[in-house]
Order: sequence, then C-alpha cells, then structure tokens
Amino acid sequence: MSPDLSEKTAASPFPGRQSKLATALYNTNLEALALNPSPSLKYLTGLEFHLMERPVVALFKPHSPVVLVLPELESGKTSQLDYPVQVFPYGEDPDSWQAAFRQAAHASGLESGRTGIEPGRMRVLELRFLEEAAAQAQFVSAEQSIAELRMYKDSAEISAMRKAAQIAQQALQATLPMIKTGMTERQLAAELTQQLLRAGSQPELPFFPIVSAGPNSANPHATPTERQLQPGDLLLIDYGASYQGYISDITRTFAVGQVQDELARIHAIVQQANQAGRQAVQPGVTAEQVDAAARSVIDEAGYGQYFIHRTGHGLGMEAHEPPYIRAGNSLRLASGMTFTIEPGIYLPGRGGVRIEDNVVVSDQGFKSLTDLPRDLIRIGM
Amino acid sequence: MSPDLSEKTAASPFPGRQSKLATALYNTNLEALALNPSPSLKYLTGLEFHLMERPVVALFKPHSPVVLVLPELESGKTSQLDYPVQVFPYGEDPDSWQAAFRQAAHASGLESGRTGIEPGRMRVLELRFLEEAAAQAQFVSAEQSIAELRMYKDSAEISAMRKAAQIAQQALQATLPMIKTGMTERQLAAELTQQLLRAGSQPELPFFPIVSAGPNSANPHATPTERQLQPGDLLLIDYGASYQGYISDITRTFAVGQVQDELARIHAIVQQANQAGRQAVQPGVTAEQVDAAARSVIDEAGYGQYFIHRTGHGLGMEAHEPPYIRAGNSLRLASGMTFTIEPGIYLPGRGGVRIEDNVVVSDQGFKSLTDLPRDLIRIGM
Repeated sequence: MSPDLSEKTAASPFPGRQSKLATALYNTNLEALALNPSPSLKYLTGLEFHLMERPVVALFKPHSPVVLVLPELESGKTSQLDYPVQVFPYGEDPDSWQAAFRQAAHASGLESGRTGIEPGRMRVLELRFLEEAAAQAQFVSAEQSIAELRMYKDSAEISAMRKAAQIAQQALQATLPMIKTGMTERQLAAELTQQLLRAGSQPELPFFPIVSAGPNSANPHATPTERQLQPGDLLLIDYGASYQGYISDITRTFAVGQVQDELARIHAIVQQANQAGRQAVQPGVTAEQVDAAARSVIDEAGYGQYFIHRTGHGLGMEAHEPPYIRAGNSLRLASGMTFTIEPGIYLPGRGGVRIEDNVVVSDQGFKSLTDLPRDLIRIGM
Repeated sequence: MSPDLSEKTAASPFPGRQSKLATALYNTNLEALALNPSPSLKYLTGLEFHLMERPVVALFKPHSPVVLVLPELESGKTSQLDYPVQVFPYGEDPDSWQAAFRQAAHASGLESGRTGIEPGRMRVLELRFLEEAAAQAQFVSAEQSIAELRMYKDSAEISAMRKAAQIAQQALQATLPMIKTGMTERQLAAELTQQLLRAGSQPELPFFPIVSAGPNSANPHATPTERQLQPGDLLLIDYGASYQGYISDITRTFAVGQVQDELARIHAIVQQANQAGRQAVQPGVTAEQVDAAARSVIDEAGYGQYFIHRTGHGLGMEAHEPPYIRAGNSLRLASGMTFTIEPGIYLPGRGGVRIEDNVVVSDQGFKSLTDLPRDLIRIGM
C-alpha cells in the first residue's frame, strides 16, 4: 500500500459514521436507511450528486455494503471509495430504472421492514421507485436519528466552520467600502458574492445573499430586488461562505446615512437580544431557554409582536439543520452543537433589523465563530 | 388605478398561465394541482421560496383562488399579486402545521379526487401533510401537463434565454486569457463564476460550473477538484448564466497545450456530431431523430460506446427540463421549444470532450442561442 493511500484511508470519516449509523438505526427500530442526494448522503459516504430528473438512492443496512442506484454516467464516482459498495447503474431509458431499483432493494434485503428516509429531502420520485421495489416496506422518518449523528460536530468540522466564518467576514469587510446610495440590492448581492469567492469561499455558496433595504428589510426572507439604496434605509445583509462543505451564515444590519430614531432604537434592542441569546448558550441549557433569553429582551422593549421567527437554527453542512432554537424545543444543548443566534425586529413598510452570529457549544459555555462589529454602522454616504 | 400598477397588471403572465393550467388539468383528468417551491410554482405564480425544513404548498383548482400554505414569515410575499389568493400561514411550532394544511385542503376542495404533483420536486415532507389533510385524494404525476405548458416558450422567455447565453459567452471569453497550467479546476471554476456575475448573470447561477481536466474530464458530471491543469490535458468547461429567471448551459472543451492525437481526433468527431445534431432540428422532427443524428456521427467513427449520455435536454427556467433529446422519445419538436445539443466522447482514464449549444426551434428550422467557436482551441501555455 502506498503512503498516499494509507493516509487517505486513515483520514476518511465515512466508515466510522456508517458504523454509528448502524447503532442509531438499531436504537430507533429501523432496519435500513434510504437516502437520495443530500448533505446526509455526503456526510455518510462522501458522495455528491446533482439532484435532477434521474433518481439516485443509497440504501444503508447495518453490516452490509452500501447499495447505490444511479445513472450509468455517474458510476465513475464510486470507483475509489474506502468502504464496500454494491452499485446498480441504469441507462438513459426511464423505463429501465424500476428494474435497477428492484435489484437494489433485493440485494439490500429491503423488501420489507421499517426503512428510514429524510422526508425533507426525499422526493416523491424516489419514494415511488422504492415503494414499487419494496412493496412490504414502510418508509418512515429517520430525521431524528440522522440529526443525532450530524448535530455533534467533531473538531475537523468545527475548524471548517470557523474558516467559513472568517471567509464570510473578510468578504463583507471588502464589500462595505463599495456600498453607495443608488446601488441596487441585486448589484450589492452580486458584489458580495464576488468578494466571497475572492476571499476563498467554495463557489457553491450556502445560499444566495439576502440584501434588502428600506421597507424590503421588513421581510425576513426577501430576495434582492432592483430597488436602489436610499438615505434613511436600514440595509440588511444575510449571507454566508462555504469551506470544505461547511458553511457560515451571518447577518448584519447597517444604516444608509441617517435613519429614523425608532429604526436606530430597534437596532439597539436587537443587538441586546443577540448578546443575551449568545450568553445563554451552555451545555445542559435547552434550545427553548436560549430562544427565551433573546426573545425576552425584545418582548420587554415592547416589540415582541415584530420578532416573527425563531431565534436560530443549527448550522453545519446545511444552512438550516437541527438544533432549532425555538420555543417548544426542549433539546438540551451539548458540546459540539453549532447554530445561529439571530433575533430580529421587522416593522412592516418601514424596515427590519436582524443580527446573526454563529456559535458552537463548548465544554463550559460557547464560542462565537463570528465577531464582526454588531453596532449600527453608517455606510453608503 | 395608478399608471404603474396598470402597467404591472398588463405585463403579468400569471393569470394567463393559470388559465392554461386549468385546461391542461381538465385534459388530463386532474381536479387540482399541488406544488411545492419549484420553477413551475414560479412560472404559474411568480412566487419564489427557499426550499427548507418548513413546507410551502400551493393548491391550484380551476376557477378558484390559488391556495397557499406557508410560514407566517413568508406571507409578505403574497401581498401584491395580481390574481386571487387565499393564504393559510402557520407559526414556528411544527405541531401547528398540519392544521394549516387541513384548512387549506378544505378551502380548495381537495379532500378527494385526482390531484397532480411534480414527483421530481415534491418532497415526502409535503406529500405526507397533503395525504393527511386529504385522505381520499390520489396524488399522481402532473409532470406531463406542466411540461406541455412550460415547453413552449414565448418571445419574452426566449429573449431572456438569449441574453443568458450572451452573458455566459462573454464570461468565458473574459476567463480564457487567465487560464494557466498549474491553476486548479476549483480556481478556474471560481474565476469563471466571478466573470459570470461581472458579465451580468443573476447571482443564482443555474448550476456551479463543471471544470474538469485530464482524466477528470472523462466523468461527464465531475465536480471541480484541486487537480492542477497540465500540458496535454483536455479541459472541459460546462457552465451557464441566469437572466430574469432563465438560463443558459454551454460546454466547450479546450486543449491545454498539445494533446495526444486521439484526443484531438475525438474532439473533431464531437464537433461534427454537435453540428449534425443542431442541423437536424426543425418542427415536426422527433427528439429521438435529433439524438440519432448526433449519435450516428460518433457511432460511425467507432466511439459509440464512449457517448454515454443522451444528446440533450430541455432548457428554460431549469437546467434540465423537457424535451429530452434521447433515443425512445418520439415527441415531435415544435416552434418555441428550447434545448441543448451536447454530444460527448469520454475515454476513461484519459479524457473527455463535450460540445454543448443551446437551440430554439423556429417556424422553419432552428436558431442557435450560442455561437462560441467550437474548434479545439489551445490555451494555458
């Protein structure tokens, strides 16, 4: 064995993750897991596929090879894996696809029993092929079991997330001096995207930057428009970078010139709520307690009805993943969990503020992966 | 009514498309259509949503308002539509979501009957909510009916696609002089991405550029790696731009310095196949005839076994949509259809060539939206 190969084998996390999956399936009374292309598939196998009109499915059964159904033209991706696989490729004619699924289901012993899926990822396309190939199987959500694996980041994952945060921060700092009134939200989003790539982000950004100004900033999920920046606008920028498959997700809100007193005031309140939320993070505290810590600051300031979303969401390979930092989630935080803290206040027709950081739960408390200034900074004039 | 609003109303294609949908549903014996966030939803309503852990569904029933189930924080998007809607928003607690689906199903009269879905878009997440809300309904594929609407592009759609092609061509021309041996595939993909944005692409690229060199180019769906460009490599670049929600999808293959004779030879064959495929395009010809026209050139040159995919796919709001240009597809081409012609030859371990253009079927024949040189150009030295 060449030194290169042995190094690669030693470094691969996939056999270990597949082994943990076997335990998780056993614990949740699942006989198998079926995944289509998704971050979880990449997490367990290292394999990435475009999600398109051709179905791709991986079947995991404890102590058996990973069974893959995929288009012939993708089968090259399976040639250098460091765990056993059994591949069922199919050709261009859609009428031939079902046969490949049937063979794969048979090979993996999937014909009956409880099989886990990811309801938020698997499409009806793949589900129907699986149902037809394994008529006696039940397909039930395995999201909880998968979350139990993926929620606990190891040090390599956290390093990648830290780097993704640094890249994003560098990109925003490079973009700020270019912001001018008259620039459109779309132009600013495009400029920020270029700076993200220049700063070293992988080109697959976690999501396209949200740049929303003036009344548009009151819509938490706005997409950038042709509206031009104007003096008096709040300018909300929500964006992130990717590094080695892990991401950052940061929001800062700026003042274009001088903003109305109430807009400055809601910024100060959100800044306090962000701080309260972050400082509530430590092992053993529940997700809903962190939400309450941030929310109570906004409630007490009289703006509770304008904080219309949860305080945060898990972060890692995906921009939204467990744990969700919201009322009603009694999950206890533990070392290695990574998520956002992003309270906001949105005044319809006038403007919104959100301040979002990325934190990791440490043994004693938390570390913030993001540290851009959180004060209301005036730009664009 | 203000002049602005009347102009906007006059220009909106959505009521007309919804009316055509009603006819298409009737013709295919469907009582309703249920969509989650997808290009078809945008095509029919103009509404865009991130596809995330919160379900969003639109229900279309002929001659009734569009019924929307969505998170409260997204409901701002529905305030300025020029067609009737009924909105069922839900809050942050997942336990409350099913009730919103039940109310929406009731309001739209979805409780029973054949309801169309897009199996390649709808997730098990949305399907389960719908199944529970309308236990007597059957959910069957409506992809054919939707394709019948979306396959025929109007002049505004074709103009946007032409512009998307021009932007992509300009970006590649700006990138070529920067290519040097020693550059990695990833670096080149990032540079091309920046040039796409600079040339005016919407930041939501249709897909992340495929840049694959040397042996990697023999994998049609490669993702860019850290491999450095070397003299003797074939360099395959497959990428596109977005403009007003419509896209381009272009491939050119280059020689890094001097390549082996056989690699130059397969490039010449693919170039001929590309030309034969394009020239076969006219109204009334079938998709499989176009595939055969391109494929026969490669077959006759003795490389048929290395052309491992179909000749092309439809193009528009999506990078892969009907019509599919493949053996077995007897669909007759008609004016307004837009698709790729992209034959290829892939020699495992050595390299691959693909040359991809975007064409539109015209009244008499076809127009190529792309016209970058197709010869084997030497670069990087």
